[in-house]
Amino acid sequence: MSHGTDLPARDHAAQDVHAPGAARIVISVDAMGGDRGPAAVVAGLVASAAKNHDIAFILHGDEALLAPLVARRKQLAGRCEIRHAPRVVTMSDKPSQVMRHGEGTSMWSCIDAVKKGEATVAVSCGNTGALMALSMIRLRKLPGVNRPAIACLWPSRNPGGFNVMLDVGADIKADAEDFLQYATMGASYARNGLHLDRPRVGLLNVGTEEHKGRAELKLAHDMIAASALTGDFEFVGFVEGGDIPGNRCDVIVTDGFTGNIALKTGEGTAKLISDFLKEAFNATFLSKIAALLALTSLKRLQKRIDPRRVNGGVFLGLNGTVVKSHGSADATGVSAAIKLAFQLAKSGFNDRLAARVATAGRAGQDAPRDEATRTEATRIEARNGTTE
Amino acid sequence: MSHGTDLPARDHAAQDVHAPGAARIVISVDAMGGDRGPAAVVAGLVASAAKNHDIAFILHGDEALLAPLVARRKQLAGRCEIRHAPRVVTMSDKPSQVMRHGEGTSMWSCIDAVKKGEATVAVSCGNTGALMALSMIRLRKLPGVNRPAIACLWPSRNPGGFNVMLDVGADIKADAEDFLQYATMGASYARNGLHLDRPRVGLLNVGTEEHKGRAELKLAHDMIAASALTGDFEFVGFVEGGDIPGNRCDVIVTDGFTGNIALKTGEGTAKLISDFLKEAFNATFLSKIAALLALTSLKRLQKRIDPRRVNGGVFLGLNGTVVKSHGSADATGVSAAIKLAFQLAKSGFNDRLAARVATAGRAGQDAPRDEATRTEATRIEARNGTTE
Repeated sequence: MSHGTDLPARDHAAQDVHAPGAARIVISVDAMGGDRGPAAVVAGLVASAAKNHDIAFILHGDEALLAPLVARRKQLAGRCEIRHAPRVVTMSDKPSQVMRHGEGTSMWSCIDAVKKGEATVAVSCGNTGALMALSMIRLRKLPGVNRPAIACLWPSRNPGGFNVMLDVGADIKADAEDFLQYATMGASYARNGLHLDRPRVGLLNVGTEEHKGRAELKLAHDMIAASALTGDFEFVGFVEGGDIPGNRCDVIVTDGFTGNIALKTGEGTAKLISDFLKEAFNATFLSKIAALLALTSLKRLQKRIDPRRVNGGVFLGLNGTVVKSHGSADATGVSAAIKLAFQLAKSGFNDRLAARVATAGRAGQDAPRDEATRTEATRIEARNGTTE
Repeated sequence: MSHGTDLPARDHAAQDVHAPGAARIVISVDAMGGDRGPAAVVAGLVASAAKNHDIAFILHGDEALLAPLVARRKQLAGRCEIRHAPRVVTMSDKPSQVMRHGEGTSMWSCIDAVKKGEATVAVSCGNTGALMALSMIRLRKLPGVNRPAIACLWPSRNPGGFNVMLDVGADIKADAEDFLQYATMGASYARNGLHLDRPRVGLLNVGTEEHKGRAELKLAHDMIAASALTGDFEFVGFVEGGDIPGNRCDVIVTDGFTGNIALKTGEGTAKLISDFLKEAFNATFLSKIAALLALTSLKRLQKRIDPRRVNGGVFLGLNGTVVKSHGSADATGVSAAIKLAFQLAKSGFNDRLAARVATAGRAGQDAPRDEATRTEATRIEARNGTTE
């Protein structure tokens, strides 16, 4: 496949972005494939529509199911177009099958609306692997990107309350040049999603000393350090697992295997402590009264660590933005994913990201700093010709 | 190097184990190299000695520093021998240097006491890489073990309150046969450390479906499944990050890179939430009163998730047990590591582990079930001849 010929209609996106309020930003939403079914998704749209007047939806799925769900919600009147798709991608479908036979599914239709420029960002609660596979073949990779990545937000000690981590599951491996692209893309996401002028990027490893870790990480360390100036980020070097929720950096770069396990470990630990906390407050009569007294404070804590509030992995490195919501997302979760999609659409994020990747690519080709950078550019070109 | 010639004096260990109370169990403790210095270590010994009359210590480090610290603690009178070691392994020392020039350090002396059979288990708060390197060259690997592993305990939803995870940082990579050995060794640790008759073992991956993950994980999946009966454990298949603090299994098997990052991510997340909780209770006058009312319950929660209470990574796969305490351990942390060392010494753990590994090895050689098992046995033998 070739790159750079059929980018999604940028003029359309630009119009939405640069005239907020004048035109509504359209989000393409997959109604099917989540664990809680289309009712939870529609409830999420309602919550978002109620809070935000600049948003509209194209909703993809079984029209016979969706039409009555949408019709009885007056907040969605005139703001939610239903697009019929007869088939559904299930959680057990293999990505390779969906890639070949995905046409006619709500997920395919959802991505296609972004490809055609009818919507700026796509949101789905469905099968992650299938969603990435369909996004890759329909939207295609940005020129210069070898492996797209999934970026997530993570509650942290930083003033803004969140860090960005990528990749958290697009691919199970990454080479040094992929890590460099993750750094560039993650920094761009942090600039647009977290409003940080010059994000601090860290490379995840088992120690902060430069001699530690796998060979590809040591190579990536030097490549990222050499690109920090061009990429407009600060490179803090190696970081450890404890820095993911910390304040040493804003963007954590890792491979999709490690990132996915770290993400699920963090979520599992937060859930465990939250459940222990509930047990602790139910333990005695006094502790129950205490819970009542501390209700407001505890609710604020709950909100800070509630994974539903940071729901939404963003696929980076494609010609269009796709937000992957948790499969088990309820209305609150879906609404959070839509809010993220809206923010990214409004900031014109994907165009900015594309420009950054292009600049990084040109910097690498025109003025290679060392052998590593030269090798990287060559390998990316070699791969782009063969991987799709 | 050859195996199987100079095992540590097992008779000595067996004597301690089988006559509790009759002879004290001796723990070898490195007083130096931790972030808080020897005073914290000595305070930890005092806490352990006060709670447990069946324990005695050999303490390694600068005698001029240690003698006055020990002399003013009457709980240690007659139970703590000081062994002078003029040098200290620092946190920044490279393992390769320590391997070559480690003689005369307190860490070397600490491990040597186990090698000589004077103590049953060694405990150190020092540099992990150096401790593993010295343990490898002084104690040597158990016959049949390719890569030793570090196992940690992890707060979980299981009835006993903890899961075992390994490897959490002995090596940055692992092959399929290493994963199989980790499963065998982890199950043995869970039987002796957590008193589970038939531990459930899970293999950490990015999904539970059998087609997911890296090639070596798919191979390991089949090898571990085939060895579950011999190894006296139940294999639950692939598990995810969320299962590390969960109750789907008791033992989580992973490579040292992923395990180290998961461990530190979990610790960092727990610390973040704990700090947020403190902030929440300090937010208002009412919430401060609430905190007072809930004090007992909150202290119980704190205890359940306090990383100091589960302090101690255990090195598995060597001719002798070594417990690595956190570098930043205070008296509570050191005491927890010593308690773990004592429990393992009392159960005769290392002899049992050696027997399990030997059985697994024989099972693989005498009655290979399939090609994978045969290949594994061959590769282990090939490696054991070359890696040391």
